[in-house]
Amino acid sequence: MKNNQFAQKSVNLNTVKQELAQIGFDPVEIENSKNVADAFLKLLKKALVNVNDKSSQIEKLNNLLATPDQQLGNYLVNNGEINQQVFYLVVLQLLQFQADVDFKINDPISAMKKINLAYIPKTAKWNKNDLLKAWYLLLTTHTKNGQTYLDHLANQGFFKGISKEHPLFFNGKAQAIFEPNDLIYETVYVETDTDSDKDGNADLIKVEITRPKTSFKLGTLYTASPYDQGTNDDWGEQMTHNVDEPLARKEPDDTTYSDIQYQKQPQKFSTRKTMGFSDHATEHHTPKPGYTLNDYFLMRGYAVVYSSEIGTKDSDGIQTCGSHAQTDATVSVIEWINHKRRAFTNRTDNIEIKADWSNGNVAMTGRSYLGTLANAAATTGVDGLKTIISEAAISSWYDYYRENGLVMAPGGFQGEDADVLAAETFSRSLNPGDNLKIRPFFDRYLASMKNLMDRTTGNYNEFWDERNYRNDISNIKADVLIVQGLNDWNVKPVNAAKLWQGISHLPINKKIILHQGQHIYINAFRSFDFNDIVNMWISHELYDVDNDVMEQIPNMIVQDNVKPETWTKQKSWLDNSGKKYYLNQHGLTDTSETGQLTYHDQLDQAEFKQYRISPQKWAKDLLDQNGPLKANQLLFKTPNLTEDQIISGFPKLHLRIATSKNVGLLSARLVDYGEANRLNVTPTTLVPKGLLLGHKWYTDDLREFTLNKHPTPSKMISFGHINLQNRHSSYQNDELVPHQFYDIDLTFQPTFYHLPAGRKLGLVLYGTDFQMTQRGNQKIDYTIDLENSYLQVPHK
Amino acid sequence: MKNNQFAQKSVNLNTVKQELAQIGFDPVEIENSKNVADAFLKLLKKALVNVNDKSSQIEKLNNLLATPDQQLGNYLVNNGEINQQVFYLVVLQLLQFQADVDFKINDPISAMKKINLAYIPKTAKWNKNDLLKAWYLLLTTHTKNGQTYLDHLANQGFFKGISKEHPLFFNGKAQAIFEPNDLIYETVYVETDTDSDKDGNADLIKVEITRPKTSFKLGTLYTASPYDQGTNDDWGEQMTHNVDEPLARKEPDDTTYSDIQYQKQPQKFSTRKTMGFSDHATEHHTPKPGYTLNDYFLMRGYAVVYSSEIGTKDSDGIQTCGSHAQTDATVSVIEWINHKRRAFTNRTDNIEIKADWSNGNVAMTGRSYLGTLANAAATTGVDGLKTIISEAAISSWYDYYRENGLVMAPGGFQGEDADVLAAETFSRSLNPGDNLKIRPFFDRYLASMKNLMDRTTGNYNEFWDERNYRNDISNIKADVLIVQGLNDWNVKPVNAAKLWQGISHLPINKKIILHQGQHIYINAFRSFDFNDIVNMWISHELYDVDNDVMEQIPNMIVQDNVKPETWTKQKSWLDNSGKKYYLNQHGLTDTSETGQLTYHDQLDQAEFKQYRISPQKWAKDLLDQNGPLKANQLLFKTPNLTEDQIISGFPKLHLRIATSKNVGLLSARLVDYGEANRLNVTPTTLVPKGLLLGHKWYTDDLREFTLNKHPTPSKMISFGHINLQNRHSSYQNDELVPHQFYDIDLTFQPTFYHLPAGRKLGLVLYGTDFQMTQRGNQKIDYTIDLENSYLQVPHK
Repeated sequence: MKNNQFAQKSVNLNTVKQELAQIGFDPVEIENSKNVADAFLKLLKKALVNVNDKSSQIEKLNNLLATPDQQLGNYLVNNGEINQQVFYLVVLQLLQFQADVDFKINDPISAMKKINLAYIPKTAKWNKNDLLKAWYLLLTTHTKNGQTYLDHLANQGFFKGISKEHPLFFNGKAQAIFEPNDLIYETVYVETDTDSDKDGNADLIKVEITRPKTSFKLGTLYTASPYDQGTNDDWGEQMTHNVDEPLARKEPDDTTYSDIQYQKQPQKFSTRKTMGFSDHATEHHTPKPGYTLNDYFLMRGYAVVYSSEIGTKDSDGIQTCGSHAQTDATVSVIEWINHKRRAFTNRTDNIEIKADWSNGNVAMTGRSYLGTLANAAATTGVDGLKTIISEAAISSWYDYYRENGLVMAPGGFQGEDADVLAAETFSRSLNPGDNLKIRPFFDRYLASMKNLMDRTTGNYNEFWDERNYRNDISNIKADVLIVQGLNDWNVKPVNAAKLWQGISHLPINKKIILHQGQHIYINAFRSFDFNDIVNMWISHELYDVDNDVMEQIPNMIVQDNVKPETWTKQKSWLDNSGKKYYLNQHGLTDTSETGQLTYHDQLDQAEFKQYRISPQKWAKDLLDQNGPLKANQLLFKTPNLTEDQIISGFPKLHLRIATSKNVGLLSARLVDYGEANRLNVTPTTLVPKGLLLGHKWYTDDLREFTLNKHPTPSKMISFGHINLQNRHSSYQNDELVPHQFYDIDLTFQPTFYHLPAGRKLGLVLYGTDFQMTQRGNQKIDYTIDLENSYLQVPHK
Repeated sequence: MKNNQFAQKSVNLNTVKQELAQIGFDPVEIENSKNVADAFLKLLKKALVNVNDKSSQIEKLNNLLATPDQQLGNYLVNNGEINQQVFYLVVLQLLQFQADVDFKINDPISAMKKINLAYIPKTAKWNKNDLLKAWYLLLTTHTKNGQTYLDHLANQGFFKGISKEHPLFFNGKAQAIFEPNDLIYETVYVETDTDSDKDGNADLIKVEITRPKTSFKLGTLYTASPYDQGTNDDWGEQMTHNVDEPLARKEPDDTTYSDIQYQKQPQKFSTRKTMGFSDHATEHHTPKPGYTLNDYFLMRGYAVVYSSEIGTKDSDGIQTCGSHAQTDATVSVIEWINHKRRAFTNRTDNIEIKADWSNGNVAMTGRSYLGTLANAAATTGVDGLKTIISEAAISSWYDYYRENGLVMAPGGFQGEDADVLAAETFSRSLNPGDNLKIRPFFDRYLASMKNLMDRTTGNYNEFWDERNYRNDISNIKADVLIVQGLNDWNVKPVNAAKLWQGISHLPINKKIILHQGQHIYINAFRSFDFNDIVNMWISHELYDVDNDVMEQIPNMIVQDNVKPETWTKQKSWLDNSGKKYYLNQHGLTDTSETGQLTYHDQLDQAEFKQYRISPQKWAKDLLDQNGPLKANQLLFKTPNLTEDQIISGFPKLHLRIATSKNVGLLSARLVDYGEANRLNVTPTTLVPKGLLLGHKWYTDDLREFTLNKHPTPSKMISFGHINLQNRHSSYQNDELVPHQFYDIDLTFQPTFYHLPAGRKLGLVLYGTDFQMTQRGNQKIDYTIDLENSYLQVPHK
């Protein structure tokens, strides 16, 4: 077990005393204790939240050891000396570490170091100030279950009875002083600035607010989730496209960006006339668990707002999958929270209701489509949006459903496309009465969408340009915290990378966290204090807490992919120069050689069928140089590495390539070769419901990335795909003459990969990607001119 | 989707009116409505828990259809006719079924039938009484998410404001009228009738009570869970026994049962002197989710009590794994709840605290070890214990860790034994201060336990006889509800079967539910109303509700293993006569033939190593007649069955067998052969957190057994194992002369198995069972005399 806490802040003795006093550990009382043991006893008793008679307190303390052979209660009653050794033996026990397993009772400090827990260095006998500093540090240190000790106390009811008339910040982070019974659940209807269902009226959207009852004005976490009101999975499945389609020849053209640039059209629609005001909501929503990070903040004095936006259950409009109209609706909610837009108590009476509980400050949260709408909202520069936590979020929908002139799957979802997702999330269809009215219009919209998104060419066009939020990146005023999985082949790393590049010169605060998982949340990991980091960030953004978060939290944190539970500060990601590897008969080397190598795309029907059913098996076979796919790939490896490498940034491939037909695609995978127990990309649940999110509140499963118990021979690091007719851009079609060689550049998905000494770096070239591309199984052969082909690997 | 509701009770019109009135659907108001449409509108408005203004109510109702082309709100306002067609179109929508997916909007009744939802048969125009009857039925019918519609309303806050001075029963079941904020969390220390740590004082054990605040006296659900205070997994792992041990020769003897019968020894110890009384607890415990069935009942007016018993964190005593001392401690808690024993506020002051909130009635709940302690408590006949819900519970520990003179694994845990489990659950070790005092004593106890449990012979002895609760089965006074998975190879079905047989003639109520899962809980399944059944049962047992539960719920419910979501009433399990199959060269047939067949036990080292690492692979290969293990087994199959069979009860095998050594074991598996998509034995999560357990309360994951998407060639139905030296009993050693034939009878684990036409019944004989037995890899050959060998399969 290794602890990584980035949001644990050092403070001076004055602050220690002041903040301890604020939560009921009175420094004056400590000062007046007869000695340090007595002072420690006072602190410990107060931390025994669940017992309040003297005998029980001593009983409970006697469950702990002060020294290898003395029980803590007796030791303190008998005025034992307090020093580093005693204090940290106690600390390890309080933090739920296990004797003999996690630490040795005669050497606590070695365990503190090994587990990476902060401690006071002074070894000699402690005085009361040492004790106070150490106690403060303990309160901000994580238990074995990935929460601060103060959170652990709060979950037991430590803050019961404390004033709820202001949020409580400790060590720069809001504390869980609220209880579920304090929560109010309200539903309102925000009038948007769009009329996506073309009924002549501005679309109303349903917004669900959950907030603690208090007199102070609340900051808001807002999650725009098109899934939140339910999904129509069967419809989505029905609409899923057949991907066993041949690659189509595209007529060469000279399309330029201005030809396909999206132009926003002005809309005409009426807005409602306010018929009165209400100081309370007349509709409520059913309490239920949400995104656990939001639930975590509800107990800490924040409002949480969900909206599924246009086209969803109980809202107007239609699902458009990333259009400007959807962004407009998303932003409307922020404007209402920021007191600049109207909401109504229901859809009929036009009775206005104000967000009078709000301080006007909004942070957007959520992963995937949810984070995508946070990206979308940020690029409008809307007032009130102080920050977005952009988790595994799309920054351009072309990078989600297409790549370099090819139709591309979001990992695991072959055949999905913008229209499928629109239908699936069009939850108005789940209300049959509402569906009756809107469905004909939406069916027409879907038909036109299918045409506009263009699965035939796979090219970037006006449809995708409207859905490229990066076009408006310079508008961003909100601070940005990006979270991206380096093994996320659903929302692929390029989305985060290009957002990160795009905001690099903007006058905003920005941070990025790269983890080794796939398409997951990272807010319940034992080894990494993500919740604390976000807490520190949000407390500053929404309540202006002066907590030095921008200095405290590194701009870039990266999880190591070799050593478990290792998260480190990094300087840069995307700006490394590349090491050039030439492709030749013997692998990847420093020097080029002449020659040609050929591989085929087509498989016999039995093989093709097998790989269609199990793309996982295909992916495994592809990486095997002598496997059943050896004629369908070219595989190049370096010799065993003599020292560790960090590949950081966009790997690039330059090829001189010819195809036997007038169509063609190039796929390439960068591979880590060498038998090893690698980190699982899906987290392991350590303790189901092991993480309490507050007192009497919801829970989360405690998780961690663990090493695979079985060694594997290889692992894909990154990949890339390109249509050979899109050598210049994803919107212009190039000529492709059979057997003629062309130079082509392919950029891989960006990575941050630790390749240890003893492994080999590998490159696999192939055509059809059973996991990602369409699968025409065409008879196409590809030939590479080795002398003019090389791989460029960005090294740190 | 198919619904199976056993606890939905038919009632007469008077009861309908009376119970509806009780929950706020006033029949007088319905009677006074201007017409049936208006009456329906009144009921629906009241069910719209989250909206309370008129416009919103009509809006929400217009989200639903009354007919394929009319919205419900408008239809009712315009006094549309109410009939079966209209009502059940609305019902399907209210129950969250999806149009086009689950039902057709022009034919609701077909869907009601197909999904197996109860409905009123009258097709002609309805009157107000029809409406009331149908509304009552709706409230008791399950939604698509496996809860009654009334539960669905309760989760939204329907019962807010209702009196909490008495529990509310509707359709014979307690309703979720409480909220989390009503709960009180108390910890007390019960003085037991045992001194397992031999310190001269009766052991005190910690007991955690959670109960709704109310003035009525509560019934109690009590879960005895040795895991609840934490486990010491590392220690358990260290202590796990090596199972790669040869089978040991046992000297023949003539041991009789009386030689090894356990005799309870009288204990001497002091009890405490009460020094005062407290009317409130001075220690509390941290609110957290528990067994979700218990959490479900907390909102319905029941107290929930957990105790980890002796040897656990904050309690006295030691872990003994099933001893009488553990049973005594378990029972002590019931006695305290039943006002017949003392508890104290802490471990020091001897201040007594009464269970003055209790009505004295207790039901024990929990699965596995938890259910085991329920079995243990029931066999004492303790007063106050009204019922046990015995889920996957051990009835004799010999049937958990041993079988017929062999050391046997609980499925999946090779090398575990009573001492391992005792160490693992000895959570006093998690308190280092407490561990300091008690550990030396417990280490000595563990050493003696290792000796007494006897892994050398695997025989039944005094140690196991003490741990055979069935010895005291005739003491049982509590009603018994047994739940057992037919694919549970951890706590194997024999435990439930022998308990079921043992109680068959006792003057108690008893019911049994057999499901097709492994070692799991079944209280969150969409297709089966387990929670309702238990609710009806418990409401009767603990509050004397006159709900006809004994007639309403079948004595035996069995899940079908072929058709998903199919649970049926059955008459009997274990009393079927057998069909005899002779073993011969050509398989299993009706007539015997002469001949001998031989198989080997030993594997070469490489194979042995491979199967040690992956017993799953071994199990797969074993069932393959032409696979790598063909020399290590004999495999007999019937021809394809021409009609469906139900195998119900204990299959039995009679063999005439010889071994090449003076030691030997026989293992046998009964197998279902034939390519098919079989039911998964581990449930699929349909909706994470999809089941709300009350208003503002915890959730459960909605689950279901689903068909495997991939067909499999075979599936084990049952198995059995026997030491060839235990032909007469598990405590007496028989002679075994090499190459001499002996007659031996082996009883398989009982089953209830639907073997469809077209499949084959198979029998596999072998020696070492890599999943279950020790693995000596000895050079032993076994020979079967076919003429005198047959299988007896109990058929329904």
